[in-house]
Amino acid sequence: MNTDTIAAIATFLGNAGINIIRISGNNALDIAKKIFVKNGKNDLDLKPRYLHYGHIVDDNNKVIDEVLISYMKAPNTYTKENIIEINCHGGLISAKKILETVLLHDCRAAERGEFTKRAFLNGRIDLAQAEAVIDIINSKTDSSHEISVNHLEGRLSREINEIIEEILDLLANIEVNIDFPEYDEDEVTINKVKELSESLVNELDRLIKTADTGKIFKEGIKTVILGKPNVGKSSLMNFLLNENRAIVTEIPGTTRDTIEEYVNIKGVPLRIIDTAGIRDTDDKVEKIGVEKALSKVDEADLVIMVFDSSTDLEEDDEYIINYVKNKKVVYISNKTDLPRKLNLKKYENIEKELINISILKNQGLEEIINKVNQMFFEGSINISDELIINNVRHKNLLIKAKNSLKEVLNSINNQMTIDFIDIDLKQAMESLGLIVGKTVSDDLMDKIFNEFCIGK
Amino acid sequence: MNTDTIAAIATFLGNAGINIIRISGNNALDIAKKIFVKNGKNDLDLKPRYLHYGHIVDDNNKVIDEVLISYMKAPNTYTKENIIEINCHGGLISAKKILETVLLHDCRAAERGEFTKRAFLNGRIDLAQAEAVIDIINSKTDSSHEISVNHLEGRLSREINEIIEEILDLLANIEVNIDFPEYDEDEVTINKVKELSESLVNELDRLIKTADTGKIFKEGIKTVILGKPNVGKSSLMNFLLNENRAIVTEIPGTTRDTIEEYVNIKGVPLRIIDTAGIRDTDDKVEKIGVEKALSKVDEADLVIMVFDSSTDLEEDDEYIINYVKNKKVVYISNKTDLPRKLNLKKYENIEKELINISILKNQGLEEIINKVNQMFFEGSINISDELIINNVRHKNLLIKAKNSLKEVLNSINNQMTIDFIDIDLKQAMESLGLIVGKTVSDDLMDKIFNEFCIGK
Repeated sequence: MNTDTIAAIATFLGNAGINIIRISGNNALDIAKKIFVKNGKNDLDLKPRYLHYGHIVDDNNKVIDEVLISYMKAPNTYTKENIIEINCHGGLISAKKILETVLLHDCRAAERGEFTKRAFLNGRIDLAQAEAVIDIINSKTDSSHEISVNHLEGRLSREINEIIEEILDLLANIEVNIDFPEYDEDEVTINKVKELSESLVNELDRLIKTADTGKIFKEGIKTVILGKPNVGKSSLMNFLLNENRAIVTEIPGTTRDTIEEYVNIKGVPLRIIDTAGIRDTDDKVEKIGVEKALSKVDEADLVIMVFDSSTDLEEDDEYIINYVKNKKVVYISNKTDLPRKLNLKKYENIEKELINISILKNQGLEEIINKVNQMFFEGSINISDELIINNVRHKNLLIKAKNSLKEVLNSINNQMTIDFIDIDLKQAMESLGLIVGKTVSDDLMDKIFNEFCIGK
Repeated sequence: MNTDTIAAIATFLGNAGINIIRISGNNALDIAKKIFVKNGKNDLDLKPRYLHYGHIVDDNNKVIDEVLISYMKAPNTYTKENIIEINCHGGLISAKKILETVLLHDCRAAERGEFTKRAFLNGRIDLAQAEAVIDIINSKTDSSHEISVNHLEGRLSREINEIIEEILDLLANIEVNIDFPEYDEDEVTINKVKELSESLVNELDRLIKTADTGKIFKEGIKTVILGKPNVGKSSLMNFLLNENRAIVTEIPGTTRDTIEEYVNIKGVPLRIIDTAGIRDTDDKVEKIGVEKALSKVDEADLVIMVFDSSTDLEEDDEYIINYVKNKKVVYISNKTDLPRKLNLKKYENIEKELINISILKNQGLEEIINKVNQMFFEGSINISDELIINNVRHKNLLIKAKNSLKEVLNSINNQMTIDFIDIDLKQAMESLGLIVGKTVSDDLMDKIFNEFCIGK
């Protein structure tokens, strides 16, 4: 391998115990030998895969930080190149100063995702696995994380490669027919093609269908909680968010004034939108009115509409009912600890589906989650057993491959010649090949690895 | 050692390549053997200090993530206990899930700074060194980082311990005199005490004086840029900040609408306050007026006041001159590329100190920095050669020790008996002992280690 050497900080700079600087390439070991000292000596023999305690010094031999350094020898490394990893103190300065010192040597700053790109280019992982790495890092929910770990372990790649192999076999058959037409076994071959194409169309269809689930796991079910003032929206939200504190993550919304929060309840990944608005005092909520929350309905996957069981239907309720009628809605009647005054005679369907809860008495949460589970996952979430597509690029290529195979079946039905079939089969194979990166352009690679963070 | 086992995430959770989970204590190795698998096998023999590649599994044997794991065997470790470090993928989920799995075993979540606290309690480092660790992590400037690295390397501790030794020798002498008064060597001993106390008072004084510099390096010179509208405040600020982009860090101010930015120019650490205000368009600045910037003057270490060389003195200028007259001020006249109209006859002193610059022509920055260097460091910044105090607790204990030694000298002058002297010498020694943690209460330890981040 004759690539240049790259370096980057591989951890997130912040107030924490440890940072890691990673160097990969031919010069990695030489650089380490220059800047790493132990008992005042450099140019040490760095035994591979061993953690060496010592110091990093700058070019004036001044100590920058106390570190643990490790040398991983090619080719059994992340990039299949020589890798040096330096564990230094956390915070903003240590890692930056060490990286600056590293970059004074024959080495350059790594681009986004460049370590993983090298892992791909050097054949340690395929493209789908490389994409799984960034999906693992970007995961916001446990389920999304688990799907991506499965992909990194090669589950998707194995399935795709098997399909590619099957098509390759067929193509070999067809080539024989084209090259030696005198054998005249067209019909046998075409029957084989038809049979396999039909089975593959079903197979791909099944995979493509999982993409909706994959998307939901990746992004969470975008949920808006609606209801007139004082029905208990903010209590419901706190109830949902507090259910499983350990895995709640708060991320800033796209605009300053909305906050989104992720929560996993029994495997159901909710992404509750505009929690900031709901979290405001009831007073403020009344001032802002339901209008603002309603503006979020369009982009939502799910609406949780809350009624107040202790008051009768009001104009606001009906307005909301009407507004969300085309969405997936879970209807909830809160405050069932008080005498019921709510009358939903006008809305029989809602009455039928209504989930009675009392947040005050801690009753009814499970029913809500079961309902959502039913709506989105038909009641069963089983990530471990099923291969799930969670990447739009993969989904689109699967659709493309499926369409090519349908084209093959069309051609067969229309009794086209075998070279027609050959082209579409090759097209299907190429689309599938792009998923695992068998054939991949520089542009596509740039696009994929630019989504990465620096240092991976 | 019979302590419980602790675990925490040692990196900052964010969108980056790697996270580290650290486990320390008697059960660390057992836990690792349960959750770490390679080729489907657990209970592996983990050779110490080696990076082992494999997977962490949950209690259902489901893969959580691909990891590198290392086992560091007591006592040559950070905490002097058995340590396991798990390098997993970055992002929010991997590290959290692994930590959750670790915590299912006989082990608890580490408190803030608890790993370093154990390093101290188990005698690997002293208290001043432990404090240096958190100062390294919290460093905002290169200089502050360097001072703290020096302290971690034991430079402060060595000096303090030497002084303690000297006092101990004296005390031994005195004890002999008290126990065996018949020897009657009081005068010899008292002369020794006087001589050493005088020299130590000077020594401590020198150290205490460095604390101002240490504070400035730690916090940066709090700088406010002032001037009437359109004199070029925002250009000056951008000029300063762009001078050394690599080490500029932006931190949020205490209130939402102020931003502070750190920059190191030739070793001078500036912390420019309210850059948000200055960064606003000139229009807005005019609307807000100088009032808002003036409100920051009280807390500033330094004011940079900007005049417009091409306009004469105006009421606004005079108002600012008057407002900042008791502060350290660098007076700058900008736009010297235009014909000079500024007349400072009324303010001869300012005229004398005035630094003429043209931001447009990139002229004069060096002079500003030299001036600030002169004002705060008397022109020479030399962190490497000097021991600098950068911790308020240390400074206060040094002052206390110095005062005790002065008490000793007072007692000698007033011809008090030797047991009086004994008490104050012991007091001085105790204060110094608290710096390195020779005698330290649980409360003090809690206070110190609570300033740490989790995972260190």
